[in-house]
Amino acid sequence: MHAIIQTDAEDPSALSWQQAPIPELKDGEALVEMKFAGLNRADTLQAAGHYPPPAGVTEIIGLEGSGVVKEANGTTRPDGTPWKNGDHVGVLLSGGGYAQYAAVPQGQLLPLPEGFNLQQTASVIEVACTVWSNIMLTAHVKEGDTVLFHGGAGGIGIFGIQLAKALGATVAVTAGSAEKLETCKKYGADILINYKEEDFAEVLKEHGGADVILDIIGAKYLDGNVSALAKDGHIVIIGMQGGVKGELNIGKLLSKRGNISATGLRYRDEEDKARIVEDTVNNVWPMLADGRITHHIDRVMPVQDVSAAHKALLDGEITGKVVLEIPNA
Amino acid sequence: MHAIIQTDAEDPSALSWQQAPIPELKDGEALVEMKFAGLNRADTLQAAGHYPPPAGVTEIIGLEGSGVVKEANGTTRPDGTPWKNGDHVGVLLSGGGYAQYAAVPQGQLLPLPEGFNLQQTASVIEVACTVWSNIMLTAHVKEGDTVLFHGGAGGIGIFGIQLAKALGATVAVTAGSAEKLETCKKYGADILINYKEEDFAEVLKEHGGADVILDIIGAKYLDGNVSALAKDGHIVIIGMQGGVKGELNIGKLLSKRGNISATGLRYRDEEDKARIVEDTVNNVWPMLADGRITHHIDRVMPVQDVSAAHKALLDGEITGKVVLEIPNA
Ligand SMILES: NC(=O)c1ccc[n+]([C@@H]2O[C@H](COP(=O)([O-])OP(=O)(O)OC[C@H]3O[C@@H](n4cnc5c(N)ncnc54)[C@H](OP(=O)(O)O)[C@@H]3O)[C@@H](O)[C@H]2O)c1
Ligand SMILES: NC(=O)c1ccc[n+]([C@@H]2O[C@H](COP(=O)([O-])OP(=O)(O)OC[C@H]3O[C@@H](n4cnc5c(N)ncnc54)[C@H](OP(=O)(O)O)[C@@H]3O)[C@@H](O)[C@H]2O)c1
Repeated sequence: MHAIIQTDAEDPSALSWQQAPIPELKDGEALVEMKFAGLNRADTLQAAGHYPPPAGVTEIIGLEGSGVVKEANGTTRPDGTPWKNGDHVGVLLSGGGYAQYAAVPQGQLLPLPEGFNLQQTASVIEVACTVWSNIMLTAHVKEGDTVLFHGGAGGIGIFGIQLAKALGATVAVTAGSAEKLETCKKYGADILINYKEEDFAEVLKEHGGADVILDIIGAKYLDGNVSALAKDGHIVIIGMQGGVKGELNIGKLLSKRGNISATGLRYRDEEDKARIVEDTVNNVWPMLADGRITHHIDRVMPVQDVSAAHKALLDGEITGKVVLEIPNA
Repeated sequence: MHAIIQTDAEDPSALSWQQAPIPELKDGEALVEMKFAGLNRADTLQAAGHYPPPAGVTEIIGLEGSGVVKEANGTTRPDGTPWKNGDHVGVLLSGGGYAQYAAVPQGQLLPLPEGFNLQQTASVIEVACTVWSNIMLTAHVKEGDTVLFHGGAGGIGIFGIQLAKALGATVAVTAGSAEKLETCKKYGADILINYKEEDFAEVLKEHGGADVILDIIGAKYLDGNVSALAKDGHIVIIGMQGGVKGELNIGKLLSKRGNISATGLRYRDEEDKARIVEDTVNNVWPMLADGRITHHIDRVMPVQDVSAAHKALLDGEITGKVVLEIPNA
């Protein structure tokens, strides 16, 4: 098969489409012929040497995608019915998505959402599992809550806005331009904050504070997030685009009885991922089927151009998701 | 009536037994003739001007105690049966415990645990509600978890050790002397750490990390607590004896998918307190009745000597609880 191979570990742009061995299957894994891979910011971190794959996982980049089951290898859906060769699937991966074939544990094979094609499906796997697991399984968003998404026009943000609205929340977002905020508004965001011009914590305070904050900035926003929090609120940190170490004012956190969690999907064990995938399919797939949530693909690029795709993401050009198209094997 | 009045706001030891008006009852409050008041570290903070009562609450110090219902005033137990004049009760207070009479919202009146007298009851109200609400309602301790209590020989610590053992946890504690650690061991602590001689985080790492940490130190232990945490672990901060602002390594927290909560009982609203009290009585009172958890009263002192009692606590002389005896009205 072919896959994207990093030819120079020191150069994040040295990503070339080369021959590579087809992955060997373990028990409980299916072989999927990949048609599309979703692009994630984490992929750029891995190329830069900052986000190594978990032990035992391929060095090939790529955390999600979609394709066709080539060897079902006895894998089954959560309800016990078998996956069959030829089934179209979405896949959540610990790595290996930028390739013509991927080995996928059965708990990470997802049906296509009703009405979604393979391309659209590749754009929602990682965001759906991430947003659902964090705002529901970790932070338990309820109807009437105010939820703040930093980076509202990013892949996570656009999906998050729609999911939180579907759950009955008021949604606040931050973004760096009027244009991106306009997109957030289109998807339902109620409170629009240009972080280059306004202090998000002050704006949230005027609105009674955020019950849940999905944070992707880390250190730089830690104190602001605590300030923006409502009583009994929950900050869930999933990214550290603004640094790793920040000062925590415990007194301020305690005065709100606040909670902070920091989570990641990639390093969870297979059982945990299967649990999250199943819960996401049960709860979020119906919202995709009936249009409460839709996909937002900024552009589709050939996987061979992945280096340009990474650059576009890092340059802030992207709204929503980039999907990489994989040539037939 | 008489109560402890702080006669000089600048002097935490200026606490004298003086005449004061009997509190006026609001709807849903009973008048309790106080017999014993439990001493809390927070009382010393309030005397020093650092822990003001919530809005609308008396300036008189005192967060817990026990006594006799003087005017039931239509108050009822959670099951709807009425409290009657003459009933013996434990009380959880937002203030006003160092006095001959206290006004108590009905959700903060507790039956005596079976086999407990008034004196013993006064020593367990605040610790029971605090430990139960934090390790169970917030951090969901499970059988087989490892739980770390800082200040294992304090009021919270000694109660916490026993409750966590009753829940099937392995218990680790820190304390500042061999003698205090011996007491912790007597109550069931498995891992004994003298914080003056050992690095608690290193010790916990050798034991696979702590699933739950009940922290009373705050800033000074923030980084150590994150280091000591097991995967998916939860740090619950209820005290800041070691400072308010500390550096949080978000990357380290994320690598463990860790959680931090900071909570307090005093500023919760009445509904929330009633919920916690009811849950504590339902779950913890049976453990007190059958001896799985017992009281530990270091000494009983006349309420008039409260200033000496505060000093003894701050000097580190106390193991477990101090109870103040209140003269009959
Ligand atoms: N832990 C996990 O399991 C997990 C899973 C998925 C994603 N993530 C992380 O979550 C983050 C978002 O993922 P994504 O896929 O949505 O990435 P993305 O599409 O690249 O979106 C990131 C967004 O952040 C915005 N941004 C940059 N600086 C900002 C600031 N100071 N304040 C507010 N917004 C800012 C950017 O928009 P502007 O142009 O408006 O600045 C961009 O839209 C990434 O860091 C990713 O690694 C973590
Ligand atoms: N947020 C809430 O709702 C709530 C409710 C109750 C209590 N609290 C707080 O929880 C804390 C404990 O309450 P408590 O009633 O148990 O107080 P306590 O009886 O005074 O116990 C505090 C203990 O801390 C120990 N200690 C001091 N420095 C330490 C260190 N560096 N490392 C480890 N242990 C240390 C002391 O023992 P050594 O002699 O061994 O140092 C002492 O036994 C207090 O800060 C209190 O204000 C909060």
